[in-house]
Amino acid sequence: MTKITVAKELKILKEPVWEKIQKYLPRKEPKEHYAMIREYPSRQGKYFRPALVLLSAEMFGGDMEKALLTAAAMQTSEDWMLIHDDWQDGSEERRSTPDEYKPALHRIFGNELAVNAGDALHVIMWKILGDNVRLLGNKTGWKVYDKFVDILMKTTEGQYLELSWIRNNRISLTEKEYYRMIYAKAGYYTVTGPLQLGAIVAGALDSEIRKIAEWGVPFGCAFQLWDDVMNLTIESHIQGKEIAGDILEGKRTLALIHLLGKCTITEKAYITSIYSKPRERKTEEEKDYVLNLMRRYGSIKYCKHIAWNYSILAKIIFDENTSHLPDTNAKHIIRECIDFVVNRWR
Amino acid sequence: MTKITVAKELKILKEPVWEKIQKYLPRKEPKEHYAMIREYPSRQGKYFRPALVLLSAEMFGGDMEKALLTAAAMQTSEDWMLIHDDWQDGSEERRSTPDEYKPALHRIFGNELAVNAGDALHVIMWKILGDNVRLLGNKTGWKVYDKFVDILMKTTEGQYLELSWIRNNRISLTEKEYYRMIYAKAGYYTVTGPLQLGAIVAGALDSEIRKIAEWGVPFGCAFQLWDDVMNLTIESHIQGKEIAGDILEGKRTLALIHLLGKCTITEKAYITSIYSKPRERKTEEEKDYVLNLMRRYGSIKYCKHIAWNYSILAKIIFDENTSHLPDTNAKHIIRECIDFVVNRWR
Repeated sequence: MTKITVAKELKILKEPVWEKIQKYLPRKEPKEHYAMIREYPSRQGKYFRPALVLLSAEMFGGDMEKALLTAAAMQTSEDWMLIHDDWQDGSEERRSTPDEYKPALHRIFGNELAVNAGDALHVIMWKILGDNVRLLGNKTGWKVYDKFVDILMKTTEGQYLELSWIRNNRISLTEKEYYRMIYAKAGYYTVTGPLQLGAIVAGALDSEIRKIAEWGVPFGCAFQLWDDVMNLTIESHIQGKEIAGDILEGKRTLALIHLLGKCTITEKAYITSIYSKPRERKTEEEKDYVLNLMRRYGSIKYCKHIAWNYSILAKIIFDENTSHLPDTNAKHIIRECIDFVVNRWR
Repeated sequence: MTKITVAKELKILKEPVWEKIQKYLPRKEPKEHYAMIREYPSRQGKYFRPALVLLSAEMFGGDMEKALLTAAAMQTSEDWMLIHDDWQDGSEERRSTPDEYKPALHRIFGNELAVNAGDALHVIMWKILGDNVRLLGNKTGWKVYDKFVDILMKTTEGQYLELSWIRNNRISLTEKEYYRMIYAKAGYYTVTGPLQLGAIVAGALDSEIRKIAEWGVPFGCAFQLWDDVMNLTIESHIQGKEIAGDILEGKRTLALIHLLGKCTITEKAYITSIYSKPRERKTEEEKDYVLNLMRRYGSIKYCKHIAWNYSILAKIIFDENTSHLPDTNAKHIIRECIDFVVNRWR
């Protein structure tokens, strides 16, 4: 299965999830408030997380149809968190459909109103989850519900770590600290969580659900590492999207950790001074300086390799852990997804 | 029953609710994140909203004990919203126990981390509500759950209105616009919502639950109007709390609307120029200028009278609507609360 096929599959799976979500996005007064609430859901993105929910449900012998509301809640969690995240990170843009970038919500409506719209979307997510318990019945429904509590709390922990490094001006992190953060935000939230949710809907055994983490976490880390690589790579930058926004935002990435471990003392001092400045005070030249050092010291290449390694590891464990499951289409696509995340350019 | 008795009753009702809430506030890693999550719940405040939940449950013939988790969720909703609210309003302080003010959360940890802690507390609130459905059983439990969705969505609408006036620099509001906002934020969220939640737990009829709004909304509006009066009045300012913070924050209050309707064109132009400035650019002299005009034109007195009128109206309707309910202690205290909110000074 090729890269194009995974992208196509994601597109197919998006439709029924989006249909569910739309039912929860009212058009009413105050009009602008509800328009803000609808904005990020309408921009859609790849729907990678809800697709994992659906595919995992099918792989574990369940019915995709039954997992649609769970998938809808998963995507809605992504959307409200992105509103808050974009403001917290000082991001300028957020992907729109199809291959286009638009200003982030807080850049259009201001920080306060955007965060308030995010809160409203957060409430809507729990409305979906409440309906979902009633749809799935008490046993499975509450398992999904409790899993969401768990996933979201973990995600706020990862968010705390990332934001506190920036606030406390901590530049030199250990790899261990970095992995602890992406374990929460990507390993668990982006991949393991959605996969486990699908398995819960399918009625998988608790032991099976737990074991998903064994390949889900390296899969999710590969996803995040590759996201960071794309941010630093010109090939992935479609119109309107700036390159190396992560450097401007002061994101602590593995590439930065690698660079700081390789560069000279003088370079390190300069990088540190650049990272201590808020986004609006960083110049294009300073961004290019860091980016070029990352290129020169092979930091981007290093991240690529680590991402690929994680992907390979995830596939090996995936094959072992899922060998007892029938060879369904869903199983194939999930396996392809593990490749896909470290081979995409947008 | 005197004012002191209501304050004492609130204190008594606080204990078992706080006991429940504490069980949902873990102490774990990352330590600072969870310390932030615990901060506002620990500062407590009056517990007016959860007390209304409990009292209403008893008034409608239910068991207070059964309403404790609902009350805990109500207070937790207040706490996560206040974190976001304080940042959105640019508030400097937040009440602590007993009669003391401390810096608002975002003033201690920065805006981004504070909002993230608020999100985590929001998730914890839904964890409580999920447990509550399982405690109360599907029929009553889901009614409480759905009511929360409704209350919180309405509250984000009110918050939208208030924030959008400030963002769009709209100073001259109609009274109708103002009442639409406080209907959502106080009439419904602070009073009618909690009362209805208690009634739901008690198993009251849908028609009874609906009718609570008839006296709950004027009761809630009286509460809010009096809050605004206290903000502008020296008697209510205990140590560490600044007077007329609402003017500095640019809050659109009934006192402001009244003042703008009474003052001269020149004064109006000056007031408008003061309100268009962000908090940090307003001077103490400018604040005092507006405050003194409000005193001179009787705007604060006007708000007091309106608050008292609403309170009287609420009591009349309360007496009529609850005449069929037995004369319980809870019923007496709720009636006293309607007086209490427009006679308190802190």
